[in-house]
Amino acid sequence: MFYIIGLGLGDPKDITVKGLEIVKKCDRVYLEAYTSILTCGKEELEKFYGRPLIVADRDLVELGADDILAGAEEKDVALLVVGDPFGATTHTDFILRAKEKGIKFQVVHNASILNAVGCCGLQLYSFGETVSIPFWTDQWQPDSFFDKIVNNVKNRLHTLCLLDIKVKEPTLESLTMKKKVYMPPKFMMVSEAALQLLQIIDKRKEQGEDPGISEKNVCVGLARVGSESQKIVTCSLKNMSTVDLGGPLHSLIVVGPIIHPVEMEYLVQFEMKKEQ
Amino acid sequence: MFYIIGLGLGDPKDITVKGLEIVKKCDRVYLEAYTSILTCGKEELEKFYGRPLIVADRDLVELGADDILAGAEEKDVALLVVGDPFGATTHTDFILRAKEKGIKFQVVHNASILNAVGCCGLQLYSFGETVSIPFWTDQWQPDSFFDKIVNNVKNRLHTLCLLDIKVKEPTLESLTMKKKVYMPPKFMMVSEAALQLLQIIDKRKEQGEDPGISEKNVCVGLARVGSESQKIVTCSLKNMSTVDLGGPLHSLIVVGPIIHPVEMEYLVQFEMKKEQ
Repeated sequence: MFYIIGLGLGDPKDITVKGLEIVKKCDRVYLEAYTSILTCGKEELEKFYGRPLIVADRDLVELGADDILAGAEEKDVALLVVGDPFGATTHTDFILRAKEKGIKFQVVHNASILNAVGCCGLQLYSFGETVSIPFWTDQWQPDSFFDKIVNNVKNRLHTLCLLDIKVKEPTLESLTMKKKVYMPPKFMMVSEAALQLLQIIDKRKEQGEDPGISEKNVCVGLARVGSESQKIVTCSLKNMSTVDLGGPLHSLIVVGPIIHPVEMEYLVQFEMKKEQ
Repeated sequence: MFYIIGLGLGDPKDITVKGLEIVKKCDRVYLEAYTSILTCGKEELEKFYGRPLIVADRDLVELGADDILAGAEEKDVALLVVGDPFGATTHTDFILRAKEKGIKFQVVHNASILNAVGCCGLQLYSFGETVSIPFWTDQWQPDSFFDKIVNNVKNRLHTLCLLDIKVKEPTLESLTMKKKVYMPPKFMMVSEAALQLLQIIDKRKEQGEDPGISEKNVCVGLARVGSESQKIVTCSLKNMSTVDLGGPLHSLIVVGPIIHPVEMEYLVQFEMKKEQ
C-alpha cells in the first residue's frame, strides 16, 4: 500500500492520529521537502516518530517515482508532505503514477495554507482564485498573477498569494552540466512580494493604465501559520513592503474591497501599529 | 485557556496528535454539531478520547457563549469543530467573544472540505469563489449563488458548492412559541443541488436570458470526503440530478471550462459509467 500523508503546517504533533499510526507501521517513509517546509526539521520529526525518514527532494519525487514506489504492491510505503496531499500538482501526479502501477493508495488529509489562512479572520468563502507570486530575475519578471488579483478585487473577493520558495534549485549555469550545482534555499518574504506588486502598479501607471489596485490597498501578511511562532500583520500594501515577519514560510493576502463586520473586528487586532 | 480544535472530516483518528493531547487534558470539552457532521457519532468520539463530550448545538454556540467559556480564564475548555476552526463565521465570532472576556485561546487546525476537495484531482488553485446552496422552500428560492458559479466559469475557474444542512432547525410554526419544536435533521444531496441548478437554468432560458451554464456542464459529486466510504462521481449536470451517493455530507463541484491534463487524467477515474 502507498500512503500519502499530510503533515499540516506547524510542528510534528500536527500530524493526525491516523497519519502517525501509518508512519509507525510503514517499511519506508519519505519526506517531501521542496514544495513547502514545516517550522521543524527532519531530525525533530524522526525523533517524534521514533523512526528514520528518507528525504525526497525534487529529483527523487519528479524523476524517481519508481524508487519511491518500489515494492509498494506488498510493502507499506508512505510519502509525507507539508500541508494537505492535494496542495501541489506534483502530488496528484504522483498518485496517478501509483495507480498506473496498480498500487493501492490511501490519502490522509490535513490542514494546508489554503484553509488555515482563515486564522486572520477573513472568511474563506470571500476568497477568489489563489495566486502564486514567483521570484523575479533580471531576465524574467512575469506579472500574470497581478491580473488575477485585480479580477478578484473587481469581484469583491480577497486574494491569497502563495509566495515562491526555491529549495534545491539548480543554478542556471549547471543545468546543462552532468553534476548539478544547487543554489542555497530561499523563501519569498511578504515585503518582497509587496515590492513586486508596487513595481507592477508603477509600471502600469507609467503606461497610462489603471492598475486596479493601489499602494493603499489593505493587505495581510502571514508567517509560519499554524505554528507557535505564527505572526500576522495587516497594513497598506505600501507599508507591507517594509514589514519583517521573520523566518519562512510567508503568505500575503490582498484584501478585497468589502470587509464584513466580523472580518473587520477580527482583523484589527493585527493592525501594524499594534504589532510594531 | 480556550481551545478551538478542528477534527478533520472523517473518523475519530483524523484529529491531530496535538488536538488529542489537548482534549485529554481539558476540564470540559464541547462538540459543535450543527454547522457540519463527521461520519462518526459522539459516542465513537467519546470512546476514542476516553472522556465525555458536551454537545454544543446551535442555541448553545450562538446564545450560550458565556456557558461554554465559563471559567476558561483558569480552567482548560475546548470546543471541537468538524473540519477546520475557521470554516464557519460562527467559530471566528466565538473566538472574538473569548478575546472580549480576556480569555487566552489556541487554535488547532485540520483539513476541511475547502482543501480536501482536491481529492477529486481538480487543482485547488483553479477554484474561484466557494458558494453555498441553500434548501429551497415554497416561499424562498434564492439563486444568487448561481451568478457566482457563472462568474467563476467566465473566469475559467471551478466552483465548490457547499450543500445546505439543517440540524436542530426550529419549525416555522414554533419560532414564536415558548417551547421550540425541531425539524428532523436533513442534508442536501448532490442530486437535489443539481436539480436546483437545472431549475434556475430553465427559468433564465424562459426569461430569454443566457444562463451561462447548461445541463451539459461537467460536475463532480463528492460524498463523505476523507472517510473510508468516500465517493466521487463525475458526469454532466443533468446526470448529476439522478446520482445517489448515499449518506451525508455531500458537496458539488461545477467544473470550469478549462481542465488541465493532469486534472483530466485524475478525474476520469470517477466517470459515471465506471461507477454505476
